[in-house]
Amino acid sequence: MIDVAIVGATGYTALELARMILNHPQARLTLATSRQEDRPRLDTVHPSLARRTTLSCEPYDPDRVAELAQVAFLGLPHTASLEAVPDLRRRGVRVIDLSADYRLKCAETYHDWYGHVHTDPAGLAEAVYGLPELFRERIPTANLIANPGCYTSTAILALAPLVAEDKIDRRSIIIDAKSGVSGAGRTPKLTTHFPECNESLAAYNVGRHRHTPEIDQILSEVGCSRRNEPVEVIFTPHLVPMDRGILATIYAQPLASESEADLMDLYRSFYRHCPCVRVTSGLPATKDSAHTNWFDVTVRIVRGRIVVLAALDNLIKGAAGVAIQNFNLMHHLPETTGIPL
Amino acid sequence: MIDVAIVGATGYTALELARMILNHPQARLTLATSRQEDRPRLDTVHPSLARRTTLSCEPYDPDRVAELAQVAFLGLPHTASLEAVPDLRRRGVRVIDLSADYRLKCAETYHDWYGHVHTDPAGLAEAVYGLPELFRERIPTANLIANPGCYTSTAILALAPLVAEDKIDRRSIIIDAKSGVSGAGRTPKLTTHFPECNESLAAYNVGRHRHTPEIDQILSEVGCSRRNEPVEVIFTPHLVPMDRGILATIYAQPLASESEADLMDLYRSFYRHCPCVRVTSGLPATKDSAHTNWFDVTVRIVRGRIVVLAALDNLIKGAAGVAIQNFNLMHHLPETTGIPL
Amino acid sequence: MIDVAIVGATGYTALELARMILNHPQARLTLATSRQEDRPRLDTVHPSLARRTTLSCEPYDPDRVAELAQVAFLGLPHTASLEAVPDLRRRGVRVIDLSADYRLKCAETYHDWYGHVHTDPAGLAEAVYGLPELFRERIPTANLIANPGCYTSTAILALAPLVAEDKIDRRSIIIDAKSGVSGAGRTPKLTTHFPECNESLAAYNVGRHRHTPEIDQILSEVGCSRRNEPVEVIFTPHLVPMDRGILATIYAQPLASESEADLMDLYRSFYRHCPCVRVTSGLPATKDSAHTNWFDVTVRIVRGRIVVLAALDNLIKGAAGVAIQNFNLMHHLPETTGIPL
Amino acid sequence: MIDVAIVGATGYTALELARMILNHPQARLTLATSRQEDRPRLDTVHPSLARRTTLSCEPYDPDRVAELAQVAFLGLPHTASLEAVPDLRRRGVRVIDLSADYRLKCAETYHDWYGHVHTDPAGLAEAVYGLPELFRERIPTANLIANPGCYTSTAILALAPLVAEDKIDRRSIIIDAKSGVSGAGRTPKLTTHFPECNESLAAYNVGRHRHTPEIDQILSEVGCSRRNEPVEVIFTPHLVPMDRGILATIYAQPLASESEADLMDLYRSFYRHCPCVRVTSGLPATKDSAHTNWFDVTVRIVRGRIVVLAALDNLIKGAAGVAIQNFNLMHHLPETTGIPL
Repeated sequence: MIDVAIVGATGYTALELARMILNHPQARLTLATSRQEDRPRLDTVHPSLARRTTLSCEPYDPDRVAELAQVAFLGLPHTASLEAVPDLRRRGVRVIDLSADYRLKCAETYHDWYGHVHTDPAGLAEAVYGLPELFRERIPTANLIANPGCYTSTAILALAPLVAEDKIDRRSIIIDAKSGVSGAGRTPKLTTHFPECNESLAAYNVGRHRHTPEIDQILSEVGCSRRNEPVEVIFTPHLVPMDRGILATIYAQPLASESEADLMDLYRSFYRHCPCVRVTSGLPATKDSAHTNWFDVTVRIVRGRIVVLAALDNLIKGAAGVAIQNFNLMHHLPETTGIPL
Repeated sequence: MIDVAIVGATGYTALELARMILNHPQARLTLATSRQEDRPRLDTVHPSLARRTTLSCEPYDPDRVAELAQVAFLGLPHTASLEAVPDLRRRGVRVIDLSADYRLKCAETYHDWYGHVHTDPAGLAEAVYGLPELFRERIPTANLIANPGCYTSTAILALAPLVAEDKIDRRSIIIDAKSGVSGAGRTPKLTTHFPECNESLAAYNVGRHRHTPEIDQILSEVGCSRRNEPVEVIFTPHLVPMDRGILATIYAQPLASESEADLMDLYRSFYRHCPCVRVTSGLPATKDSAHTNWFDVTVRIVRGRIVVLAALDNLIKGAAGVAIQNFNLMHHLPETTGIPL
Repeated sequence: MIDVAIVGATGYTALELARMILNHPQARLTLATSRQEDRPRLDTVHPSLARRTTLSCEPYDPDRVAELAQVAFLGLPHTASLEAVPDLRRRGVRVIDLSADYRLKCAETYHDWYGHVHTDPAGLAEAVYGLPELFRERIPTANLIANPGCYTSTAILALAPLVAEDKIDRRSIIIDAKSGVSGAGRTPKLTTHFPECNESLAAYNVGRHRHTPEIDQILSEVGCSRRNEPVEVIFTPHLVPMDRGILATIYAQPLASESEADLMDLYRSFYRHCPCVRVTSGLPATKDSAHTNWFDVTVRIVRGRIVVLAALDNLIKGAAGVAIQNFNLMHHLPETTGIPL
Repeated sequence: MIDVAIVGATGYTALELARMILNHPQARLTLATSRQEDRPRLDTVHPSLARRTTLSCEPYDPDRVAELAQVAFLGLPHTASLEAVPDLRRRGVRVIDLSADYRLKCAETYHDWYGHVHTDPAGLAEAVYGLPELFRERIPTANLIANPGCYTSTAILALAPLVAEDKIDRRSIIIDAKSGVSGAGRTPKLTTHFPECNESLAAYNVGRHRHTPEIDQILSEVGCSRRNEPVEVIFTPHLVPMDRGILATIYAQPLASESEADLMDLYRSFYRHCPCVRVTSGLPATKDSAHTNWFDVTVRIVRGRIVVLAALDNLIKGAAGVAIQNFNLMHHLPETTGIPL
């Protein structure tokens, strides 16, 4: 049994983490923390956990985490992880960080997009980007996992085969992505107030969403063996009136003429060892992967342009589910242990 | 042309008011106020009003209201109206108050349910309850209208024929009401955060919703010519994952055996002069009255019990639309002038 | 391993059954049938099952079922089960029937409400009503389970403690129930066409929903040890714009004065051995039991009337989940094996 | 008063037409037709029209239309219009056809995309494409209006300024469009069954949606004065779980470096005489134009690429509202008479 803490347990990702850990045959949830001073029970914060746990949320204390847990999942806002990670690692706790703080390898890029100086360059250097489909071999020995963003996982997994095999013009990539509202977190604000976003659809953060440099970085890394040219994507996120799910519709210019059949074969081959990827003949609907850890993807050619369509559940495969994949790999367990499929 | 101010212009009811006033052939919107200090344009607060108005929201100042408007619609939270109403009336402004502050005739009941001392008993004594279907003759001369609550209009209009004609046991009334989320206002909070209330249904404030004494009071008044026994209802509100609309399913014990046909005739007769009421043969769906000022109602008998089903749009017939009905009656205009039907 | 067939595999309940069976450590899905003549793959009918099964749907043939399965789950429309059940039982297959055909003990009542003569009185006599919380001891030896309706499970479990302990007037019960749209099945029709039912709320089948006699029958049976008076409920179903979930708000007149605390204790005690029931202090929201087999219930007293609020997932605890509970009990497995909680 | 018929009155567009005609100061609805043989009342087909009209739907008969109406709005499926239009024109009825039958100027293209031979080349030659913002001068004298498709209006109006002024590479245009479900019509089918499309998002008809050649044709025509090169777009439609609204996110490669401010000025100038267009500084949300005839558009530059975001209500500005705009222009009435804004 591996003892596990969730640091920052009040959000939607934390709820999904708690569900999976409580069902996991090799993990034990020993601690949940929150800033709420009245130490609410976890099943008061998340009523769906009633009769599943009797834990109460404690204030965060790194000593307490180290005492009770071997692994900590961090569900903190960015910059808060920057403070907690070094404290926890110093105490020997392995960390899976779900914030953005350790995803961008370049501290300057972090500063440009997040507006904060990165105060833990040592951690940044050691952090492993936790996308098992691409970096499976680095994860087992990692002590600090930077868990990917939800849009980024969708976009990267959708494009990795094309970039790795150098099939597309790296400056032609357009990612038109649409997300359910849970992706915006659990803090109430006007844009996610029900009567504002229900029965409505809009783009947001056009040209300035913080997942952009993360997609650029990982795709550039994925493609570096073939070509030393950075990937630079155009990424437009949209808010869709549904709870969960991301659909990315991605357009790219092929470098040579391609057939749909060959591209589908490329995807099937590229992901043949990945237990959470489905290369689908039909067009993916977010509902078919909702509440699961599946990543669904298909490819089309339209008037000479490649169109990739990809879907996943932003809270599971886009956050908590991949975190458990990482956890499993870190502990030499089958990759899908305790994960809904 | 009648000059009109909206005091408290940032909420959903105020938006509907603004839309109707901007389309109204006899009204002119001369002032909108809000607490936001940066004086935002009204079409920044409500983007759907773009190209419809160039007004900016001003801080509330009773002198300014009196200078610019003959009538003020108050979209303030309760207790705030208690302060504004005497100031405005003193300056000769006629007021249509959409808060709850002048609805309950008994100041003690107000204190019991709202937790505040009522500081304007003179206003309370003069206020006219603005439900035109029942109190049409009192409205034209009123200087202070207490605009009804959305649940209360639904329940009262659904039950008035039965109570007025003394058809039911006044202690047997159960009102199971369901509302879209816009009824909860525009201030973000966790219960109306999209991923919390979307795809979910729950009751709230069971036995303690503040519309209860309002329903009791008006129905008791409606029925007083036949019987001097107060009405006391059981009222359960529910939050439904949709923008707008209230459906009330109401159960009552008849005092004598009744037929559906006779009851339908009673309703048709009772509302025969009401231009915004439809007695429907089918079961009302909230969608059929959405975005309009219709009140839809039908009656059934099930195993000897009377079941009334009634629907309206909570923001229009339940708030802004009836306010314009009142405005029209106060100015001897046709009751439905400028109102969507 | 127990070999299992799903007869009638294209509906939503069948999909949930398939998911649970595919995850069940002691069950193996060996056959799925449908009327579609082109023998579609099950994961074409239900794309969310991709990579989970390679079965194709076969036309129904009782010999084939008997050859491949020890237990058959019947996801057929009513009257179709009436034909299939005798054929399957004759061949030694144990049947869990999810239709209404074997729920009503009285063939005349069946005829009155369903408009068909009941052609299998022998089956009817032997069928066990599959509500484990109330009839756990009868299920293990049953060869034919009548799996309860979704509204009926909600209403019966919500009322059973009160009726069993003779706390309420049996003629005073009003069940105002609200269901997500998946309860209406998977066959497209105008009432469940998205733009018709989305953003709308309406009652339907007022006074004539076929779950009414089922609720009457089971509650009368539950209460018969205390009082030989039949229960007769007023039941009003509503369609709510959400996928899944039922909330029942139930009103009943107590026979004596009761306290909320005592009633809550009664519920906790009544269900103390039931692993899928949560007596909640807060008001249940359908979201908290969605995608799980939980039944959530609480009790309030409002102006002397008892108000019970209960929620469950209509496809799981209201259909497929309780079917697996029954399956587990029939095979002496822990009751919640393979069931999401 | 102009007498008006709606031929094919049961769909959602017809309902919006009926609402606007019933409110229109210069139009009178004298006839509604449907294939339903029992001649249902129009307010039975559309309950929201109760107390607004007492018309019953009649079977379609061109003589009857000619007898009762000067103008006919055709809400027929494609190919059905092909039959009705010549019959009506021969009888002197002016026709506004909301189907696709007269939109594509080239009969071969029609055959390629719709699979039918075009049997009315004379009508096709005379038909005027009813997009007032671009072809205002042709509409007043037209006897046959081809009312634009909803996606096409969105895409064309969003791109017309850039194409007309030759700002973009005509082969670089990507239109990622998202529509509410009412765009799929009122005939129930599995893809628009509530539990299938609610809480889900998917693309459909990728590369083969029939609005593609219509967009190509009109944009090529709009741009022909500057350059004789056809426009060929990549168009991907998506189904969004909401009733109404289209959002198009459009990407194009500029021919020269452009600034956002200049492009915004271009749009404002291009549409300065259009009473139903709003060039918005913020990102358009479909909710802000829902239930109105507004077309909202804005422009951004992202990493050198032009991104246009445009929204409208598919049933109003995308169908019935523009039809009334055409009707008004045909009768020399102010363009927005009777149209909700």
